Formats: sequence, C-alpha cells, structure tokens
Amino acid sequence: MQTPTSVYLDNAATTPLSDAARSAMEPFLGDRFGNASSVYAAGREARKAVDEARERVAVAVGARPDEVVFTSGGTEADNLALKGAAWHGREQGHDGVVVTMIEHHAVLDPARWLGKQGFRVSEAGVDASGVVRLDALKAATDGKTAIVSVMWANNEVGSVQPVAEAAAIARAAGAVFHSDAVQGMPWIEIDAESADLLSISAHKLGGPKGVGALIVRRGVKIQPLFHGGGQEREIRSGTYNVAGIAGFGAAIEDWVLHRASTVEHVAALRDGLQDAIVKGLTGVRVSASDGERLPNNLHLVIEGIDGESLILLLDAAGIAASQGSACSSGAAEPSHVLAAMGVSRDLARGALRLTLGPSTTDADVDRAATTVVDAVGKLRAR
Amino acid sequence: MQTPTSVYLDNAATTPLSDAARSAMEPFLGDRFGNASSVYAAGREARKAVDEARERVAVAVGARPDEVVFTSGGTEADNLALKGAAWHGREQGHDGVVVTMIEHHAVLDPARWLGKQGFRVSEAGVDASGVVRLDALKAATDGKTAIVSVMWANNEVGSVQPVAEAAAIARAAGAVFHSDAVQGMPWIEIDAESADLLSISAHKLGGPKGVGALIVRRGVKIQPLFHGGGQEREIRSGTYNVAGIAGFGAAIEDWVLHRASTVEHVAALRDGLQDAIVKGLTGVRVSASDGERLPNNLHLVIEGIDGESLILLLDAAGIAASQGSACSSGAAEPSHVLAAMGVSRDLARGALRLTLGPSTTDADVDRAATTVVDAVGKLRAR
Repeated sequence: MQTPTSVYLDNAATTPLSDAARSAMEPFLGDRFGNASSVYAAGREARKAVDEARERVAVAVGARPDEVVFTSGGTEADNLALKGAAWHGREQGHDGVVVTMIEHHAVLDPARWLGKQGFRVSEAGVDASGVVRLDALKAATDGKTAIVSVMWANNEVGSVQPVAEAAAIARAAGAVFHSDAVQGMPWIEIDAESADLLSISAHKLGGPKGVGALIVRRGVKIQPLFHGGGQEREIRSGTYNVAGIAGFGAAIEDWVLHRASTVEHVAALRDGLQDAIVKGLTGVRVSASDGERLPNNLHLVIEGIDGESLILLLDAAGIAASQGSACSSGAAEPSHVLAAMGVSRDLARGALRLTLGPSTTDADVDRAATTVVDAVGKLRAR
Repeated sequence: MQTPTSVYLDNAATTPLSDAARSAMEPFLGDRFGNASSVYAAGREARKAVDEARERVAVAVGARPDEVVFTSGGTEADNLALKGAAWHGREQGHDGVVVTMIEHHAVLDPARWLGKQGFRVSEAGVDASGVVRLDALKAATDGKTAIVSVMWANNEVGSVQPVAEAAAIARAAGAVFHSDAVQGMPWIEIDAESADLLSISAHKLGGPKGVGALIVRRGVKIQPLFHGGGQEREIRSGTYNVAGIAGFGAAIEDWVLHRASTVEHVAALRDGLQDAIVKGLTGVRVSASDGERLPNNLHLVIEGIDGESLILLLDAAGIAASQGSACSSGAAEPSHVLAAMGVSRDLARGALRLTLGPSTTDADVDRAATTVVDAVGKLRAR
C-alpha cells in the first residue's frame, strides 16, 4: 500500500512548477497563442513575452539579453555547445574537444560522438571528491583545442567544480570554454562572464520541462544544431515555445530572488539528514563531502546493498529518491561519475542520491532518515 | 485604433491551444511534476502520460507507438531527419541529399549545411502550381543518395505533393524517404507507411508550441541530433516535456476526430473568401489553384502592392494574416517558394497568405474579404 503523502527528495531530477512560472504561462496557453515571429498584434505580444523572459534569464546569470539562446532544455543546450563549438572550431583548424570524466551524458556523449567524427577527445579525470584535476585538464588542452567543457557542479554527487580556473586554462589555449550549469545554477550564484557558453535548464528551478537556454557570450561563434527559420540570431531556429519561455523567465527570477534563503534552509536540512543517516547506519560513506558541494545534495554509497532495490523500497514507503541521474534510471551500468572518483563497481551499486528543494520540511527529513535506515537494514538482513 | 475583436487568418503559422490539449496538460503543470525517466511513483505516472500520448500520435498518423520520437517541434524533427539520415548514410558510403526547392527552411537549410559538410545536395524544381517535378526528383536521385525529402504540402501556397511517387523514387534508389508533414497533417489523412521519416508539429493542430515528433519507421536508422540520457531509443535524449507531450497527444486525437468535418467547413469558407477577393479586385492571382491544395489555404499574388504594407494595414483593421512563413516575417528576401514557381521577384512582393482554422466563421470571412479589397485599394491609390 502506498503511503498517502509522499516525500520528494529528487529535486536534481526535476522540481515542481512554481506558482510564478505557472501564472506567467497561463495567458500563452489561452488567448495569447500568437507565433512570436509574426508581425501582427498577436505575434507582437508573444514576442514581448519572449523578450521579457530573455531579460529575466539574462539578469539571473549575469548575461546580456542578446546572449540568451532559448533551447528545448539542458540536453539541447549541451549538445549545441559541444557540437556547435567543435564544428566552428574545425573550420579554424581546431580539432580538440576536452571534457571531464564526470560530465552529464548530455556533454560526455556528444564529445564521444565528435570523437567518431574525427575530433581528438580527452576526458580529464577527477579526484576522490569528484573535482576535476586541473593538471589533467591543462595537459589535455592545447593550441588546437576547439572547446573545453567543465560542469559547474556535478549532478550525481554535487561536487562544485573550479570553473574559473578551468576557464583560464581554456582561454590561455585559445579554446572556447563551456560550462553545464544545469545543476549548479539553482544553488550557486552564476556569473555568465566566467564562461563563453553556459547551459541552464528551467525545470531544475521551478520552471517547466522542455525549455532551457544556452548563454552564448558576445563574440563567441558556434554553428547551429537546428537550421531553419533563423530565430535566435540564426543560432537556434524553431517556433518559440512562448508559454514555456515565459514560465522559464518567471521561474528563474523568482528562484534567484529566494536563492540565498533557500540555500540556507536546504543546507541545514541536508546536514541534519546526513547526520541522521550516518549515525543510524554502519558502512555508509558521504560522497564529495571533502570539498564544496551543492547544499541540497546528499549522495551516499552504502555497503552491502543494491541501490535499485533501495529506491524501490523507499518508493513503496512514499519517498522519491534516485541512484544518480534520472536519465540513466534502470541502466545496468554503474555510475561513470563514481567510477571516475575511484569507487569500486561493487560499492557503486549501493549509491543513493537524496536532493532537497525549497519545499522540503523538517518532517520530510525525519521521515526520510528513518525510512532509509530501516530499508537498508531490511535489505542487509535478506 | 485597434478593432476590438480580431480575425485570425494565420492558422498555418500557429493555432490556438485546444480545450482537449489544455485539459491534458493541466495535471502535469500541477501536482504531477515527476520526471518520466524516474522509477518511483511520480516518475511512472509521468511516463504513463508520455506513453499514452505516444499511442495517440501513432494512431493519428498510422504508425506504431515505438516509431514515435518526440521532439521540440517541427524544426527539430526536420533537422533530425535530414542530418540524422545523412550522417548514417555517409557511414554506408551514401553522400547524396535530395530535397525540393520549396521545402520549409527547416529542411532546405539543413540540406544546404550538409552540402558544406561534403554531401552532394540537389534541389528538385517545381511547376508553376508549386508541385515538385518528379522527373527532376528522379534525375537527382541515384544509388548513392542517403535521403530524399519531399514535404507533404507546402506551407506557403498549400500545394499538396505527390508523396507516394516521390517515396517510390527514393526507395527504388535505396534512399531513406522523409516527408515534412507539419502543414499537411492537419488537413490530409496521413499514412506514415508512405514515408520512412515523417515530421509533425503539435502547435499546427491545436497542441502546444515546443513539441512535435519525428516518426521513424521500424528498421530505419538515423543518427541522433541530441546525445545524452538515451531517451527515445537513444534517438533523442533529453528530459521529457511531459505536459507538452500530453497536450500534443490530446490535441492530435481531437483534431483527427473532427478533421473530415473541419476540412469541409474550412474549404467552403476558403472558397467563399477566394471568390469574394477575386471578384473584388483586378490583378490578383490565386497560387497553386490548378492542383490539389490544402483546404484552409488561400495564397494570393496581388499586383502593384507591397505585401508587407498590406499585412500592416490588415493588422490595424484587426485581421491577422501573413505573407508566407512566420519564420521569415520581415525578411527582405522574397519567398523562395514563389521564386521556384516562376513568380517574378516584383510580383512576389505582393504575396498574401490567408489560412483558416476550425473556428473561422462566415463573419470572419466576410470581414476579411472586405478589408483585403479595401486595403489593396488604398495601397494602390497611394
């Protein structure tokens, strides 16, 4: 039997739509249905909504409105950054692509695909805390590197990356620097000036699914992934998702307004959750706890259990949690992030990711801690 | 002063969100916010909604559910089809890309970009009615052709293309056949069996903007445009836009249910509108009227006026219309479709596209006809 009220601890996978976002979307799911590329009144009001959202997104990340390229989400933004910069680079004789071993698959897999297309691809390793080794990144980067991509913060273990230092390495080599800030943006003040290309996603911070942006700094040249009508300075063609974009703009503005207090709130709850679980269980290790970590992330490696079974037990008890990224749910392969951090294949099977959000409560945390401890006990007793 | 109630005659650019679509989206803009790739309850209910929509889309186009690949819209579907098939073809030693001169820019521009990447690209011409010349298509296609792309119906002049014959030419050469049915689908019964790849879009038939699909027939191999989490059989990664997809499924089911009566309704109104304008004006020619034409499309070439000025006058009088595709609104270049049909650059400036929808009324048509005749008179008198 399903517990009636559930506790949602998978905010890294997706977040509830905020009231601000919902209200901003409403008109464009109703009477205001115009195509933002049309010149008549209905088109102009749609365009105005897109431009207002563009300004809100720009302000939230410290960019200029004309640097915001709306996409269908983080995966598109990452693919556009990697492939767009690599294709442009090739025309200048640059054939190198450098990423880290712990990038989201939306960065890692485009890089590997580019490798099959003749690019030289390097994946820089990380330390045991899940932080990229800058010496490895530097060694991988040369005067023929087209793009260096280092995520702002990791989506599984929450480790924050040395973005400024990585950007300096890329720029010294004359390469474009991209950062996937899909997970970092909700929790860390992002300054788009730090990167040439920056990926963000709406649904990780109270916005709708199906919309995101790539920030393309002035003067940075990339090739499009979608050719067509010529929207977004010809970088990204396609009819504007007006409602989604309006929702994104409202969500990010609202989220950033409350970010500092949310961070304080979730960090305290996360620390409490961590303490309770670590006290209640033996053979549990907190990932990435040595360095800077996202305040809402608690990633555990629990000995002697199968993480997938744990997720199912937690689900039955009304706790929504995951092993790592949602995309790879049910995948047979252990996490590439944990592997890069030196966690054994066997131990990595016992991964549990709990990610808090603005609406997480003390009661949620208490219930989650008790349930996790109980469930692990049951699994170990089997 | 703006006329209070406006007449919307640009349904080819976009359509109002249907009640069916809106209702289907609601839960997923509210409590049901789970990520469809997550394994717990909230994820499973999102996945269920995606799969139900997948089935509805499949039924609407005569495909199987597992052949539906959800995208962010028609532009993405077209780019995925062209580039995905071309990249796959290249691995088999096929380097030819064949399109028609009147494709939407979302097909034409990817083809031209592929041309810069070393593919042999041919653009088959059309006759004066805007129908592809099958002999030209056949001459352009050879044993090394990777993909042939012929739209189901043209977005500007509404000419319906000989899809079955075009598909036969492609298949005889061993090439993949793609059809952009973004404009055809709302008005013509589409049988996905006719094509290997078929692009459709939600917002052209009462669904939300920001969602579409590429139908990829079983056994047809293409490379992805987005690499990442591995959704959609690894053909299209990215978090599912659950609300948008649910809205698409409901919209297309509802639209197809009423399509036959809608077609009857709009065809009669369109014919009336055409008669009234042709009777009221000299020097006006109806485009693509010799062959099969979309029932909701009235495209006119009007001598001695500037179409952009006409659109603005109509807008001021509360009539929403366009010159051609919304994407190219305000573009200085005359329509590539009219050029291919042999319309002179000078005449093409006087293009007007009026596209009706299910909610268009007799009163709308009367008002539009009168307003167009008056406005053209004013422009000619200047």
